[in-house]
Amino acid sequence: DEEDYESEIPRIDLGISGLDNMIQGGIPERHLMVSIGSPGTGKTTFGLQFLHHGLQQGESAVFITLEQSREAILDTANERGWKFDRYEREDQLAIVDLDPVEMANSLDNIRGELPVLIREFDAERLVLDSVSLLEMMYDDQSKRRTEVFDFTRSLKEAGVTTMLTSEADDENPYTSRHGIIEYLTDAVFVLQYVRGDASETRLAVEIQKIRNANHSRATKPYEITLDGIDVYEQASIF
Amino acid sequence: DEEDYESEIPRIDLGISGLDNMIQGGIPERHLMVSIGSPGTGKTTFGLQFLHHGLQQGESAVFITLEQSREAILDTANERGWKFDRYEREDQLAIVDLDPVEMANSLDNIRGELPVLIREFDAERLVLDSVSLLEMMYDDQSKRRTEVFDFTRSLKEAGVTTMLTSEADDENPYTSRHGIIEYLTDAVFVLQYVRGDASETRLAVEIQKIRNANHSRATKPYEITLDGIDVYEQASIF
Amino acid sequence: DEEDYESEIPRIDLGISGLDNMIQGGIPERHLMVSIGSPGTGKTTFGLQFLHHGLQQGESAVFITLEQSREAILDTANERGWKFDRYEREDQLAIVDLDPVEMANSLDNIRGELPVLIREFDAERLVLDSVSLLEMMYDDQSKRRTEVFDFTRSLKEAGVTTMLTSEADDENPYTSRHGIIEYLTDAVFVLQYVRGDASETRLAVEIQKIRNANHSRATKPYEITLDGIDVYEQASIF
Amino acid sequence: DEEDYESEIPRIDLGISGLDNMIQGGIPERHLMVSIGSPGTGKTTFGLQFLHHGLQQGESAVFITLEQSREAILDTANERGWKFDRYEREDQLAIVDLDPVEMANSLDNIRGELPVLIREFDAERLVLDSVSLLEMMYDDQSKRRTEVFDFTRSLKEAGVTTMLTSEADDENPYTSRHGIIEYLTDAVFVLQYVRGDASETRLAVEIQKIRNANHSRATKPYEITLDGIDVYEQASIF
Amino acid sequence: DEEDYESEIPRIDLGISGLDNMIQGGIPERHLMVSIGSPGTGKTTFGLQFLHHGLQQGESAVFITLEQSREAILDTANERGWKFDRYEREDQLAIVDLDPVEMANSLDNIRGELPVLIREFDAERLVLDSVSLLEMMYDDQSKRRTEVFDFTRSLKEAGVTTMLTSEADDENPYTSRHGIIEYLTDAVFVLQYVRGDASETRLAVEIQKIRNANHSRATKPYEITLDGIDVYEQASIF
Amino acid sequence: DEEDYESEIPRIDLGISGLDNMIQGGIPERHLMVSIGSPGTGKTTFGLQFLHHGLQQGESAVFITLEQSREAILDTANERGWKFDRYEREDQLAIVDLDPVEMANSLDNIRGELPVLIREFDAERLVLDSVSLLEMMYDDQSKRRTEVFDFTRSLKEAGVTTMLTSEADDENPYTSRHGIIEYLTDAVFVLQYVRGDASETRLAVEIQKIRNANHSRATKPYEITLDGIDVYEQASIF
Ligand SMILES: Nc1ncnc2c1ncn2[C@@H]1O[C@H](COP(=O)(O)OP(=O)(O)O)[C@@H](O)[C@H]1O
Ligand SMILES: Nc1ncnc2c1ncn2[C@@H]1O[C@H](COP(=O)(O)OP(=O)(O)O)[C@@H](O)[C@H]1O
Ligand SMILES: Nc1ncnc2c1ncn2[C@@H]1O[C@H](COP(=O)(O)OP(=O)(O)O)[C@@H](O)[C@H]1O
Ligand SMILES: Nc1ncnc2c1ncn2[C@@H]1O[C@H](COP(=O)(O)OP(=O)(O)O)[C@@H](O)[C@H]1O
Ligand SMILES: Nc1ncnc2c1ncn2[C@@H]1O[C@H](COP(=O)(O)OP(=O)(O)O)[C@@H](O)[C@H]1O
Ligand SMILES: Nc1ncnc2c1ncn2[C@@H]1O[C@H](COP(=O)(O)OP(=O)(O)O)[C@@H](O)[C@H]1O
Ligand SMILES: [Mg+2]
Ligand SMILES: [Mg+2]
Ligand SMILES: [Mg+2]
Ligand SMILES: [Mg+2]
Ligand SMILES: [Mg+2]
Ligand SMILES: [Mg+2]
Repeated sequence: DEEDYESEIPRIDLGISGLDNMIQGGIPERHLMVSIGSPGTGKTTFGLQFLHHGLQQGESAVFITLEQSREAILDTANERGWKFDRYEREDQLAIVDLDPVEMANSLDNIRGELPVLIREFDAERLVLDSVSLLEMMYDDQSKRRTEVFDFTRSLKEAGVTTMLTSEADDENPYTSRHGIIEYLTDAVFVLQYVRGDASETRLAVEIQKIRNANHSRATKPYEITLDGIDVYEQASIF
Repeated sequence: DEEDYESEIPRIDLGISGLDNMIQGGIPERHLMVSIGSPGTGKTTFGLQFLHHGLQQGESAVFITLEQSREAILDTANERGWKFDRYEREDQLAIVDLDPVEMANSLDNIRGELPVLIREFDAERLVLDSVSLLEMMYDDQSKRRTEVFDFTRSLKEAGVTTMLTSEADDENPYTSRHGIIEYLTDAVFVLQYVRGDASETRLAVEIQKIRNANHSRATKPYEITLDGIDVYEQASIF
Repeated sequence: DEEDYESEIPRIDLGISGLDNMIQGGIPERHLMVSIGSPGTGKTTFGLQFLHHGLQQGESAVFITLEQSREAILDTANERGWKFDRYEREDQLAIVDLDPVEMANSLDNIRGELPVLIREFDAERLVLDSVSLLEMMYDDQSKRRTEVFDFTRSLKEAGVTTMLTSEADDENPYTSRHGIIEYLTDAVFVLQYVRGDASETRLAVEIQKIRNANHSRATKPYEITLDGIDVYEQASIF
Repeated sequence: DEEDYESEIPRIDLGISGLDNMIQGGIPERHLMVSIGSPGTGKTTFGLQFLHHGLQQGESAVFITLEQSREAILDTANERGWKFDRYEREDQLAIVDLDPVEMANSLDNIRGELPVLIREFDAERLVLDSVSLLEMMYDDQSKRRTEVFDFTRSLKEAGVTTMLTSEADDENPYTSRHGIIEYLTDAVFVLQYVRGDASETRLAVEIQKIRNANHSRATKPYEITLDGIDVYEQASIF
Repeated sequence: DEEDYESEIPRIDLGISGLDNMIQGGIPERHLMVSIGSPGTGKTTFGLQFLHHGLQQGESAVFITLEQSREAILDTANERGWKFDRYEREDQLAIVDLDPVEMANSLDNIRGELPVLIREFDAERLVLDSVSLLEMMYDDQSKRRTEVFDFTRSLKEAGVTTMLTSEADDENPYTSRHGIIEYLTDAVFVLQYVRGDASETRLAVEIQKIRNANHSRATKPYEITLDGIDVYEQASIF
Repeated sequence: DEEDYESEIPRIDLGISGLDNMIQGGIPERHLMVSIGSPGTGKTTFGLQFLHHGLQQGESAVFITLEQSREAILDTANERGWKFDRYEREDQLAIVDLDPVEMANSLDNIRGELPVLIREFDAERLVLDSVSLLEMMYDDQSKRRTEVFDFTRSLKEAGVTTMLTSEADDENPYTSRHGIIEYLTDAVFVLQYVRGDASETRLAVEIQKIRNANHSRATKPYEITLDGIDVYEQASIF
């Protein structure tokens, strides 16, 4: 019966306490996750905080950005008091800024090299910010799908727990911009703006899916502060 | 008159008791069914549970996944206490993970080999998770249609009761992503999120169609637990 | 004045009494009709019942299916106690299952042969289930239109009363999937799901158009039972 | 001042008294008009009645149908007690059924011949049922526009008062299917279904535009009876 | 401070008094304006009235129509008691009807000749009715944009105050049909139908933009009468 | 802890006091910003005012317009009492009007020359009005993305604080017309029309995103007056 059951799957914490409390037992290790949201909903912050949590515990990590420069990422982390420059100097962290055009053109190679990098670096957490910018580079739909499919497969095989960020669809906050990635991932977090009667726009997060995990299905308010993302799992958005 | 009538069609249970209670007499054997739903609505769980029910009764079964690895499927089943590894060892179950790109490219062959496999294996239940990933591989609409049409036809002819899973349309939960499969199948189950006034997202299932069966047309709440899908046919979603 | 007027057009009954009551005088003979609906709304049942009504009166009939096998159609009719196998043996009924791909490729021939078949068979009622599957086979819009246009014209000229079934548009239940057939037919029946406040989905039918006939414009509830389609022309859907 | 003003433009009646009452002074002669509506809203009936009104007054008329056969049009008119067969025999009326495919292919010729026919026949009223079927024959948008544009221009120059019928857009009843014709015509009538709280679908007409005419902007209910279209300009649709 | 400020930009009146009252100081001379509206909202009337106001003050003017014949425009103006035929005879007004197909094909030339015509004619007001018909002639989006862009630039350089008319988008009355022209113009007037609870459709105008002018942002009702457009800037549409 | 924290990022003011008050500490220097809005929402005014604020403090600035002529920009600024002509004469300001067609064709060069110009000119603020007109010049989606991506990257590297203006999507005011630029920028301002029950259209601004800044998430009313944009951060839009 359910009481006696003990999951055998090793699990980790995201590092956002309010959100971690909503997930029973934690995220299964090596899951491929995606955070979907509009600009400014905190996707990059989420990714940085996810890495910072691992780094603090002595894990190694990789941050791949297609949107900003390495320096901008360091600035943001440092501004928050997360010592990403120190982690980088001590070879615990690699921040890589890739040109999405080049990445798209050499995805074959990257698919080969990334697992090597991850293994050599012994990285336990990886962030790719954002997968939408990679997807955008393909005009041909089936090409995009097969490339993204193969890329996510190689990430899964590399044995790292990964957080992708993705732009949201213009009309449906629960859908990614290109509508593929949520089907290829093990976990989906939906970050969205709530514009109600009040003139203040609020932020809310919903865990849409985590394979092999029992999680809350509530939509919870959160804020982005200097300290990162703060989910109020006791509060109610409506 | 209707009272005296006795259906001559052999029927089976899905293995989800709440849902089976909503179908008078059961699902006609050899039906081709589809479960339509967004990510995390439990399509894969539905498929696994459908097979597990048959396996428990000594039937043989095939699970074809285009989305996950064989190992991931085994993990999920084992986590739930469904002994898929044992069934596999005892040749009662075959779990096949196919690359959707390759599957699309060699669908002609697969169409030929699958019925052979099913017959040799004497499989009575089959799951394909998901047909959307196969459909996605074709850019050309008419090509997609004819391929999917021919594929479903070969499944029907193979004499197995089949559950396909399909992504839902972004805007209409009653429509599959590519809008074809619901017209080619004998039974359609719609799994959807219900986001009402409450801040908790709920899950609800509706039987949209079962050829040659009298079924409830109610939309019923369900939950996904460690034990699988639990449909509350006594409760009301609204 | 209207009182004295007597229509000179010969008319027939559909065979669904609730619906026939909504049509003054009946359907003009040789009309080309279409039933538009989502999966499971009962289009195929409507078609079978329409034929059965004619068969019972000694008429000959043809059922062309692009979606199911001949056997599946016979099973469905037999399950309902409609002796389609007997009618077929006695050469009063022809059930033809066509592959839509082949039908599309040889539509020229079919257009030529169908009227011959109808005449030789002396068929008074014909069903094509469904015209959408035929339409789907053409990617090129103008090709689709001209083919469908020519095909419906040949049906009209063949001198048979015809019921086509058509999938509904995803967003507008009053529109067919490809948006052509409702303009080429003499009569349009709209079958739709009504999902209101109650958690039970209901079925409703509206007669949108019958050339040269005075008909009710009400939307009426119906049910599909073992006996076929039952329209409650006294009840109200709202 | 406005009181003394007397329009110098010769005007005619449509022949639908309720509608004519909504137009001050009548329709300017030689106007190119369009009736936009879904299937069954009475576009063909409107066109027939418009011609019948002229025929009764001794005018000559032409009815071009792309949708039905000459015989079907005669049947409909005769059923209503409008003696179209007599008018045809007495050379006051020409009913022409054209194949839209052929019409599209030889539109250049038709554009040349139509004015000749109109002049020889001395036709004062013309109906084309429907312009949408002609528009459908062109896949290339700019080709469609220029062809339709040139065709309407030749009709305007032919010196006949013309009523075109057009299918409505699926989503917007005030827009024609291809969205061009309402901009090329002098007058636009919108026929639409009103599906409100009541379960009875009603019909309503609005005059959207008549160049050089002062007209009501009310939406008025109408019915189609054996006698044709009956607009209740005293009643209210809401 | 604002009180002492005196605009140095020369300004003109449109000639629709209600609307002119909503604009502080008037329209800056040489502005390129656009009126966006559905068929029958009075765009052509607006343009004619705009010219008539200038003509009455002794200015010269040009009216280019792509939709109607020169004669039809004269008829409409004459019907209203605006002596366009006299102005034309006295060389104060030029009415030019262009075939949109030809205009699109020779836009290069026209772009060269129009400024010459304007200068020789010393035209102070110009109307082009409608820019949408010109835009429609291009299938290729970027071609359309660059052509329209270059054309509007040549109009701006010609030193004339111009009113373009444009069809509205089917779904959004604030957007032009092709969605470009409102971004290339100095002033945007939105003419729209208001279909509320009442069964009478009303007309309403909003000034969306006038560069370098302070204007009301209210939506005001207007009517089209024999005397032209009448804006009720004291009334309220809701 | 947060109290002691002092941001090390140098920051600037926009020059719109109400808006600046909504941003804690100011905009990080060298940010790439975008203002999204429909025609007439004040995007150009925003850009001019942003430059004027810097010019008043002795900074150098560049204004690139793709929509208007250099003269028109000078007129608008002068009308407002902002001495752009003087700043230009004194080589503190460069106003450049580019033909979007030419800009698109020579974007490679411009990408090279712009940083040089910025450095030589020592510009601290730059406005590009509007990026949508540049984006419009590319029909090919992936071409557009890579061009815009490379262009924004070169702006970021040039070390100038930049404000882009962008047209809004027709249906979603929070989305730019082409849906890319909001993902490539560090800050997003949404300018929109609020059309409520009242017949007066109002203007409202929301700060959707500023990387590395704590900002209000309220939607605040603003007006455009002769003095520029005035945000009422104390008032409420609803
Ligand atoms: N120091 C801070 N204090 C408060 N909020 C901040 C701070 N820094 C950034 N933010 C907020 O975070 C948002 C950016 O988050 P980010 O993770 O970059 O979003 P995304 O990646 O989804 O576009 C900013 O728009 C701002 O609202
Ligand atoms: N042990 C568990 N306890 C409770 N819920 C679970 C458990 N495992 C999985 N789930 C739920 O099942 C969902 C995944 O179901 P799945 O069948 O994979 O959905 P789909 O195939 O439709 O994407 C998870 O998002 C989670 O909500
Ligand atoms: N014996 C039966 N008793 C009651 N309902 C039935 C029976 N057989 C079929 N149905 C109903 O009819 C539906 C199928 O109707 P069908 O005519 O095949 O629909 P369509 O052709 O529109 O997809 C089933 O989904 C079921 O709801
Ligand atoms: N004799 C009649 N009595 C009452 N209504 C009729 C009669 N004949 C036709 N109708 C009505 O007219 C409709 C068809 O009108 P029609 O002019 O052909 O429409 P459209 O051309 O817009 O498709 C039918 O659907 C029916 O409702
Ligand atoms: N003499 C008139 N009296 C009242 N209204 C008129 C008169 N002439 C035209 N109209 C109105 O003007 C409308 C046509 O205006 P028009 O400027 O041609 O519109 P648009 O160019 O936007 O299509 C007609 O539909 C009618 O409602
Ligand atoms: N002197 C002024 N007084 C008041 N409002 C003005 C003045 N000048 C311009 N405006 C307003 O500013 C608007 C134009 O702003 P602009 O910045 O050009 O908008 P955008 O660039 O978004 O199209 C005009 O439509 C008008 O409403
Ligand atoms: Mg980000
Ligand atoms: Mg799944
Ligand atoms: Mg069917
Ligand atoms: Mg018709
Ligand atoms: Mg006009
Ligand atoms: Mg601007």
